[in-house]
Amino acid sequence: MKPFLTENFLLKNDFAEKLYHNFAKKLPIIDYHNHLPPNDIANDKQFENITQVWLYGDHYKWRAMRAFGINEKYITGNATDKEKFLKWAEVVPYTIKNPLFHWTALELKAYFNINEILTPENAEEIYEKTSKILQQKSHSANGLLKMQNVESLCTTDDPADSLEHHIATLKDANKVKTFPTFRPDNSFAVENTTTYNQYLSKLATVSNININNYDDLLKALESRIHFFNESGGRLSDHGFEQLSFFENDIYDIQSLFKKVKEHKVLSTEEVEFFKFKTVIELCKMYHKIGWTQQFHLGAIRNNNKRLLDELGPDTGFDSIGDLSQAKALSGVLNRLDSTNQLAKTIVYNLNPADSEVFATMVGNFNDGTIKGKMQYGAAWWFLDQKDGMEKQINALSNLGLLSCFVGMLTDSRSFLSFPRHEYFRRILCNAIGTDVANGELPADEAFLGKIVSDICYYNAKNYFNFK
Amino acid sequence: MKPFLTENFLLKNDFAEKLYHNFAKKLPIIDYHNHLPPNDIANDKQFENITQVWLYGDHYKWRAMRAFGINEKYITGNATDKEKFLKWAEVVPYTIKNPLFHWTALELKAYFNINEILTPENAEEIYEKTSKILQQKSHSANGLLKMQNVESLCTTDDPADSLEHHIATLKDANKVKTFPTFRPDNSFAVENTTTYNQYLSKLATVSNININNYDDLLKALESRIHFFNESGGRLSDHGFEQLSFFENDIYDIQSLFKKVKEHKVLSTEEVEFFKFKTVIELCKMYHKIGWTQQFHLGAIRNNNKRLLDELGPDTGFDSIGDLSQAKALSGVLNRLDSTNQLAKTIVYNLNPADSEVFATMVGNFNDGTIKGKMQYGAAWWFLDQKDGMEKQINALSNLGLLSCFVGMLTDSRSFLSFPRHEYFRRILCNAIGTDVANGELPADEAFLGKIVSDICYYNAKNYFNFK
Amino acid sequence: MKPFLTENFLLKNDFAEKLYHNFAKKLPIIDYHNHLPPNDIANDKQFENITQVWLYGDHYKWRAMRAFGINEKYITGNATDKEKFLKWAEVVPYTIKNPLFHWTALELKAYFNINEILTPENAEEIYEKTSKILQQKSHSANGLLKMQNVESLCTTDDPADSLEHHIATLKDANKVKTFPTFRPDNSFAVENTTTYNQYLSKLATVSNININNYDDLLKALESRIHFFNESGGRLSDHGFEQLSFFENDIYDIQSLFKKVKEHKVLSTEEVEFFKFKTVIELCKMYHKIGWTQQFHLGAIRNNNKRLLDELGPDTGFDSIGDLSQAKALSGVLNRLDSTNQLAKTIVYNLNPADSEVFATMVGNFNDGTIKGKMQYGAAWWFLDQKDGMEKQINALSNLGLLSCFVGMLTDSRSFLSFPRHEYFRRILCNAIGTDVANGELPADEAFLGKIVSDICYYNAKNYFNFK
Repeated sequence: MKPFLTENFLLKNDFAEKLYHNFAKKLPIIDYHNHLPPNDIANDKQFENITQVWLYGDHYKWRAMRAFGINEKYITGNATDKEKFLKWAEVVPYTIKNPLFHWTALELKAYFNINEILTPENAEEIYEKTSKILQQKSHSANGLLKMQNVESLCTTDDPADSLEHHIATLKDANKVKTFPTFRPDNSFAVENTTTYNQYLSKLATVSNININNYDDLLKALESRIHFFNESGGRLSDHGFEQLSFFENDIYDIQSLFKKVKEHKVLSTEEVEFFKFKTVIELCKMYHKIGWTQQFHLGAIRNNNKRLLDELGPDTGFDSIGDLSQAKALSGVLNRLDSTNQLAKTIVYNLNPADSEVFATMVGNFNDGTIKGKMQYGAAWWFLDQKDGMEKQINALSNLGLLSCFVGMLTDSRSFLSFPRHEYFRRILCNAIGTDVANGELPADEAFLGKIVSDICYYNAKNYFNFK
Repeated sequence: MKPFLTENFLLKNDFAEKLYHNFAKKLPIIDYHNHLPPNDIANDKQFENITQVWLYGDHYKWRAMRAFGINEKYITGNATDKEKFLKWAEVVPYTIKNPLFHWTALELKAYFNINEILTPENAEEIYEKTSKILQQKSHSANGLLKMQNVESLCTTDDPADSLEHHIATLKDANKVKTFPTFRPDNSFAVENTTTYNQYLSKLATVSNININNYDDLLKALESRIHFFNESGGRLSDHGFEQLSFFENDIYDIQSLFKKVKEHKVLSTEEVEFFKFKTVIELCKMYHKIGWTQQFHLGAIRNNNKRLLDELGPDTGFDSIGDLSQAKALSGVLNRLDSTNQLAKTIVYNLNPADSEVFATMVGNFNDGTIKGKMQYGAAWWFLDQKDGMEKQINALSNLGLLSCFVGMLTDSRSFLSFPRHEYFRRILCNAIGTDVANGELPADEAFLGKIVSDICYYNAKNYFNFK
Repeated sequence: MKPFLTENFLLKNDFAEKLYHNFAKKLPIIDYHNHLPPNDIANDKQFENITQVWLYGDHYKWRAMRAFGINEKYITGNATDKEKFLKWAEVVPYTIKNPLFHWTALELKAYFNINEILTPENAEEIYEKTSKILQQKSHSANGLLKMQNVESLCTTDDPADSLEHHIATLKDANKVKTFPTFRPDNSFAVENTTTYNQYLSKLATVSNININNYDDLLKALESRIHFFNESGGRLSDHGFEQLSFFENDIYDIQSLFKKVKEHKVLSTEEVEFFKFKTVIELCKMYHKIGWTQQFHLGAIRNNNKRLLDELGPDTGFDSIGDLSQAKALSGVLNRLDSTNQLAKTIVYNLNPADSEVFATMVGNFNDGTIKGKMQYGAAWWFLDQKDGMEKQINALSNLGLLSCFVGMLTDSRSFLSFPRHEYFRRILCNAIGTDVANGELPADEAFLGKIVSDICYYNAKNYFNFK
């Protein structure tokens, strides 16, 4: 019987241990997709207590607390930071076999050298201890990132964003390099004409382009893509329940844009068509400038309207959808590929039932021009736990080339979630080491170590071309 | 190499063995959902032979026999009970790796102390031996239940049922407490106006309410809910391929009801709307009275029309559907939650591809008011085997709180299927014990034993509030 | 730690080893579905080099090469055979955890006694060595098949095919028996009226039947079925993304046929209806003559139109679909069964998310007339790797009778892919052996060896009734 959370956590045999300790462990982290606030990095924020850096904004924990029967007051309500932490501590032991149990233990260990399970008994002591540590310079926003050997990271940003904080971090050698990611969801959110027209004004101002027609919109977006690129951005990202695809232009996009400008409501299909056309145009721009485009597909958001109204979006009421994905994904990728304008692409999938569909679909568009051009993305959101990562590794390796994978990312809103890379690396080393132990791979440590190193760091480094 | 079916069956390490033997094994069973006939319990039926209690009505076994090429005569036909048993014995050895192999061995052992695999060679002897044992008082309907430490159980009943047998068991200390479950499928089965109108008459009689309009129907149903509640019922249940959801009231429900009363056929959409509206109204009643509502989703029934015509429903011609479930489930739960009328809910899913969709969807409606309010239900029907139970445990624990799970049920029509609880408990203990053995959970026997005990018994006891 | 690719490859315990070495290993192969060219067998083709027999036409390898960034010139282009082989050798080490890594090692070992991993370092040497060996009579087309103990095989053939090569192999005791499979996809491909009318002419010629109306088409097809049957054929096969089912005859099939003859374009629904009706009629013919019908469902083909235009179909641009399958499959099987005209049937599924749906759906149509009448087919295409085979074995055994399974097939276009049977047999023996080692099956070597033998050989032999 193995003790809990040793240095060989999740490593089930000697070869896996070698791969992890001799290769994976030491490599820097390129966290190429997350939702950290760039101003906290630029200003090197110092957190007052662990609740602020750990529980604020973490809807994984909120869902668990609600399931356990904790009153919303202690989750997002007006309880004190300490009260909230104590309530969370009540739940932690009951999260066994949920990823939160592992995250919690790993994070307390990695950042605060705490080797106990958080429980109601030690909660008060841990709250005080961690709050004290968080006052230290070593535990500022950049300190926390550097403790985890984060070399660079990519946040998620609106085309109209000034990127001032990103630019600031890139100019300051003491800050972790923070690159922007172009997430243009607002630029085609035509379902609400009021907010959309407000958005157009904002975009016009920052881009210095009058947006009177659809072509102006594209010009403004392209100018922002160039600005993001100059500011170090090399990726875009898009969140859709599912992509839309239209074989034929059944609407005139210029007229649709005109309708929206005149505050006329579009039909559901017109909205879908507008999004489809605009995404296609944006993707061509990404290709032209040499970026990587990301698609996060399969979430159904804001299911609980009552609590959405009270708490807003991203508060723990999203879930996995059972949507048909293959045909539209095929249509969109094919449309771009047919004129040779398909950029490097990462497709993330939220429903594990669709893993094999996605993994084989992206493979259809590898054309030998770029190593690992089409990526089946890392286990995402609900799936970024042990089972989910193992399944992503298996789907990818059974149906494509694991060796070309650009690896893990946190997708997180919290500065304390970077041990997720460690978690992934252990799982990866264990998956390969287990095959070796079982006689299903040759015991070539140097070669398998190289592949592990590629997946943990070098593939991302070579693929994205950050400055 | 481990011998077959020892006391440590399915337990792969010491810690799993401890959890099972020190905690899970001894706990009583609350079988909160099955299809047992309550009159057999009230009358304490004595079975003539093993065929009657084991093969009659067990369509799992029938499917296996048909797959093996056994003539229907020996399955549901006019062969003698003994002939049927001998044919079943021919099939048993060929069910290896199917759950029937394990069920068969466990059940012969648990009820008859038979430690051999049933084969054609020993079939005759076993038939005689078990028939003799079944004459004994120890092996009456109640005897069989008590042998398995069944504390209480919930059958599945129509709103118009008299519940006389349930009431009788609750008054007799020698009978296993048998609670009714309100299953109102007939009350909205408006696709057949003839049978529906007959049903309304029956419902009117038992409820003493004239059902002239839709409001009367709801009144009658609410009065039956109160009657079920007085008779110990605390649950409702509903079987749908998939739920329907209508954002807007596109029909007038009163007019639809009037049409049905006048024997006019409703369109498919009108039928769906009628069901949707009625389910919503019923669910509000369940919430008001503090019940738990169950939804069994995802079966496609009666696929084989030829054999349906010959043999009737529930004879082994149902299968798993690949239906879109998320949006309607979200819609229905949200509609109820938006006015704070969402009862405690258990959603069961028949297609394992949808596990993660269901497990995350129910989680959206936990609001911190009740511990484990929204339950992702136990592995159901085709899935209540080892792989299926393990997957349900994993999906639930990866995406929610396993510690709050209300646990296993038989969903069975047979008095001999209660070792399914033992099977589940072994699998649960093994899942947790394996994590401990692998260093993925701390080896805290007392705490993990408490969680095992909660899942096997105490969570159900606290959640359902039976008398 | 176990060395790579020993005689106990994939066998994780003693019992699994016994099952493989004492039972599975020695049995002949009945490869009842593949895409080998029958003329190569009739003419006993001798290959010039390993590229010709190994890389030509193998789109699994092509996809991996494209993913690795290899230029199309070295895949399907005008590079020399040797250059192509050297490029493939660059990719092989990077296919770890993809089935190609195992296939490659197994095939080099089985046919050329090469026990090294193919790498750029040894590629030249291996190319020369294998090319020399391939000149030998022992390594002709028939030689390669006999090395793997192939007793008989079934290719995939158009109804209009002359079957001359099949007939030749059956007359020559030195050739491996090569049976045709009736694959009538062209006979209902009415979406293209030009190619369809050309096809009708061809069919009319070979069948000696003037095809003036739909009944003539059916007559011609039935005559070809008889010809296939006389030529040793006992199976049909059909490839559909998904089946279509129409409850009612919403079109007149005679009129649709007339329209096509007059080169009028049918609507999408008319095409679907034509296919549905014709498949139903064909299936009745298969039933009448006692054949087995196969359905391969779930692929989305030709996603990459640009490369389809350049390279044609079956070049590596197909993938797994997420299509709704259950209702139409139920409808078609039920329609045939309702008049007792449902032939023995094997349904193959490409999307592993649908495994349980398919496995339970086919089970609805077992009626006890034939042992294992309805088969849930072997892991197919993207899924014929270790994980995929294990999942197929599990889905089948959890939901049906593994013991009645007719076993593995290559579905291959290459003479070197027959170690896939060895691979499957090892996985099967390991699956059963692991249950024994875990105490989940009794250690009855004779009986479990019999079941293994049945699945590897005897079930297929008894089920298909080849001459």
